[in-house]
Amino acid sequence: MPKTAGIILVGNEILSGKIEDANAAYLCRELRGLGVDVRRIAVIPDEVQLIADEVATFSRDYDVVFTSGGVGPTHDDVTIEGVARAMMAPVVRHPLLVQLLEQYYRGKVTEAALKMAEVPQGCELVGGETVRFPTILMRNVYVLPGVPEIFRAKFDALRDRFRDQPIHLKNVYVRIGESTLADYLNRLLAEFPLLQLGSYPELSNPEYKVKVTLESRDRGYVEQALTDLLARLPADAVVKVT
Amino acid sequence: MPKTAGIILVGNEILSGKIEDANAAYLCRELRGLGVDVRRIAVIPDEVQLIADEVATFSRDYDVVFTSGGVGPTHDDVTIEGVARAMMAPVVRHPLLVQLLEQYYRGKVTEAALKMAEVPQGCELVGGETVRFPTILMRNVYVLPGVPEIFRAKFDALRDRFRDQPIHLKNVYVRIGESTLADYLNRLLAEFPLLQLGSYPELSNPEYKVKVTLESRDRGYVEQALTDLLARLPADAVVKVT
Repeated sequence: MPKTAGIILVGNEILSGKIEDANAAYLCRELRGLGVDVRRIAVIPDEVQLIADEVATFSRDYDVVFTSGGVGPTHDDVTIEGVARAMMAPVVRHPLLVQLLEQYYRGKVTEAALKMAEVPQGCELVGGETVRFPTILMRNVYVLPGVPEIFRAKFDALRDRFRDQPIHLKNVYVRIGESTLADYLNRLLAEFPLLQLGSYPELSNPEYKVKVTLESRDRGYVEQALTDLLARLPADAVVKVT
Repeated sequence: MPKTAGIILVGNEILSGKIEDANAAYLCRELRGLGVDVRRIAVIPDEVQLIADEVATFSRDYDVVFTSGGVGPTHDDVTIEGVARAMMAPVVRHPLLVQLLEQYYRGKVTEAALKMAEVPQGCELVGGETVRFPTILMRNVYVLPGVPEIFRAKFDALRDRFRDQPIHLKNVYVRIGESTLADYLNRLLAEFPLLQLGSYPELSNPEYKVKVTLESRDRGYVEQALTDLLARLPADAVVKVT
């Protein structure tokens, strides 16, 4: 079961401000819901050596890695080559993918389209039961496309592989500012050193000033910490708890 | 004048899917408009050593670096410490920031709030003419806050520092798919090897199938490449050019 994850977005179009990525935020929310800790996101250009270096590092550092983007038929689609180079594997055409592409293009498959049958040698094809094209898994690296609709459909088909011990979350919304709040949070952390404690000021919301988040994989620990925090805070400081 | 940039988002809240970052996309658009090439974005946890390692690498690899997040008064605000460690500088209180905080809190400044006067020794304070608090610049690293409203106001105050030779962009929207398009793009690149050429399929837009982007700092080069591409493409393939 994966405990940590890394996400690599391959995308000149994101770095040059042409397209706003939606896949990383989606994946972070989904993985968190499944109990997986996303430890790093990298956005890098469509360059084979940069992709290879990044994939090699992420694959070593995290239990599971996702790439997004760079997997179509055009010149700037070089993610497969990057993943293959990271794993020191050659790029080969996968017979099943060739067959699926021939079906999809009804026999009129172009040489360019066949680029989408290329995989790093030694990969598995996974999650192909519910989507048209399966996902390439090379060791612990899942290669996903950049187009959000397909990205989500493919992740959905894989979702159950990543289910882990859930992370329990409590949100406390307060109407005092961070400068006053800081002491309360420091005292809470002194009592509950293993708590994941976040503090997020919100300027545009008139209802509260700061959202405080308390998290742990141990539900009882979060609840004790919450009780402790609420007992310490001035009663009129708390707007709501969710 | 900076030619390349890197962006570091310090944010457990982004990695855990609680908050969707808006600062990186904003900064990519703005910097592109100014003629700066963003080469990498990293999203990392609120951990001093990770921040230090990332800042040291980015500061070496890119002309200019921006950090976003982790600069408030609470326990999870550790960006300054990370930047200082990256530069092997001690953290000190800056007298001007102490004075600004005392004014802002009208003499009732807490010890926690004074954390916001901490800087890496040797930094400059810049852009303070038009916003309440100036921005900390340590060598080539600009330390910006995570709150989008303040992030934007602070960047606006600094914008003119980053103006570079503009990057010229032409967009060609086509109604043919990438598998057919790929050959045209490959031939274009053979003629214009220095062109930055992107190809972005769009599933949800019924008007076109792919947006093709042509870019260069040389306006004439982009225009020649555009003429060449339009001459080669089947006339009914082009939806519009912008």
